[in-house]
Amino acid sequence: MYLNDIIKSKEEVNILKKNVLMNITYGMYLVGSKYKNNYSGMISTTVCQSTSEPETITVIINKDNYTHDLIEKSKKISISILSTETTFELIGKFGFNSGRDTDKLIGVNYIMGDNDVPVITTSMTAYIEAKVINSFDIGTHTIFFAKVTKTDNLDDKVPMTYEYYHTVIKGTSPKNAPTYSLNATIESNDDNKYKCSTCGYVYDESSKGNIKFDKLHENWVCPVCGMHKIGFNKI
Amino acid sequence: MYLNDIIKSKEEVNILKKNVLMNITYGMYLVGSKYKNNYSGMISTTVCQSTSEPETITVIINKDNYTHDLIEKSKKISISILSTETTFELIGKFGFNSGRDTDKLIGVNYIMGDNDVPVITTSMTAYIEAKVINSFDIGTHTIFFAKVTKTDNLDDKVPMTYEYYHTVIKGTSPKNAPTYSLNATIESNDDNKYKCSTCGYVYDESSKGNIKFDKLHENWVCPVCGMHKIGFNKI
Repeated sequence: MYLNDIIKSKEEVNILKKNVLMNITYGMYLVGSKYKNNYSGMISTTVCQSTSEPETITVIINKDNYTHDLIEKSKKISISILSTETTFELIGKFGFNSGRDTDKLIGVNYIMGDNDVPVITTSMTAYIEAKVINSFDIGTHTIFFAKVTKTDNLDDKVPMTYEYYHTVIKGTSPKNAPTYSLNATIESNDDNKYKCSTCGYVYDESSKGNIKFDKLHENWVCPVCGMHKIGFNKI
Repeated sequence: MYLNDIIKSKEEVNILKKNVLMNITYGMYLVGSKYKNNYSGMISTTVCQSTSEPETITVIINKDNYTHDLIEKSKKISISILSTETTFELIGKFGFNSGRDTDKLIGVNYIMGDNDVPVITTSMTAYIEAKVINSFDIGTHTIFFAKVTKTDNLDDKVPMTYEYYHTVIKGTSPKNAPTYSLNATIESNDDNKYKCSTCGYVYDESSKGNIKFDKLHENWVCPVCGMHKIGFNKI
């Protein structure tokens, strides 16, 4: 079994310079699926075209994600390609909350795809519909190999890269993402900033209108993911 | 067999707007392998991290590539991450020639990896060594799923994206790449330019020092891939 082979020792982990993997380029995608009446969507960086004849894509998803379950059952995928105009709030809604607990379609624009999966259109550049042909077990994640069944443009915007998200929007990866461990390499010497341990949202005391973090109401929660104050760390 | 399922009709092809898939973001990588004394390397856009515990990557490669054969036999991969300083000539050397016919190590700097596979270092940002754990057949291509065994930085350069390659360096995809069909969407109304059908190199008559294409010597060949004049088309 290959799963046994991929367990590696602590020593092996230590020889990897994790920031090297930050040199791999990714885009930002909203991957959705629907099974019966249940829809969910999530933010993914690991979408790529895999063959051109026929046109297929691969999407790599953590098994813990609700969207993973829905794709496994329905074999249907919708992918919206984020633009540089996509807000941190929308990313937070889809990236740091589970579709098991919340209705992710509330408050966003979407169209119903030909494959009966909602396609989120708010601030997206284009979308892809696909049907799973095969799936490959790679331990914590599954590679879904899917045939592209429809593509269309939504707006003439610039696709968002992970680099842009990381440096401009200042987000971090959720715990289930393949790139999660990269977050450990992000360091900051800024004072007066507190980062949400769940979604990466940063509360900056020095921003106009903000009060001291210690003075925030005890019921205050992270505006992106709803984490309580206790889940924030000074950075 | 899933391979039968992925054959689609002409009608299906026609409903895909191919330029949509250009919205997917890729980086540029030099993927190499070595089996016994045979080395080859090629340019790939389809490298991504697939899990973080342990750290693994997936690399998607066309079965026609010599590098594919070498990876299949040796299970060893070296990946150099291209920078914006990587030249079109280097990309042409690795992207549009086969290691079956040429010694790709001539004229480039490289170090020998811990896994005994040469790692090209000329104008690269960083490199990754990996060992194949499993491989998945997806028709024209194979997905190699590999454990990262070593990573290191090479230089403080900016990683090259496919977008950068496409718009700044003005290259096109080789015929074996997953993104090959995207080239069909590139149009130009420029006069006096001739594009190599093999590698995408453009001969521009108006460039300083260039003569008319028709006046080029009959033995003149593409400076990047060696294609003869007959392989050029006016664009």
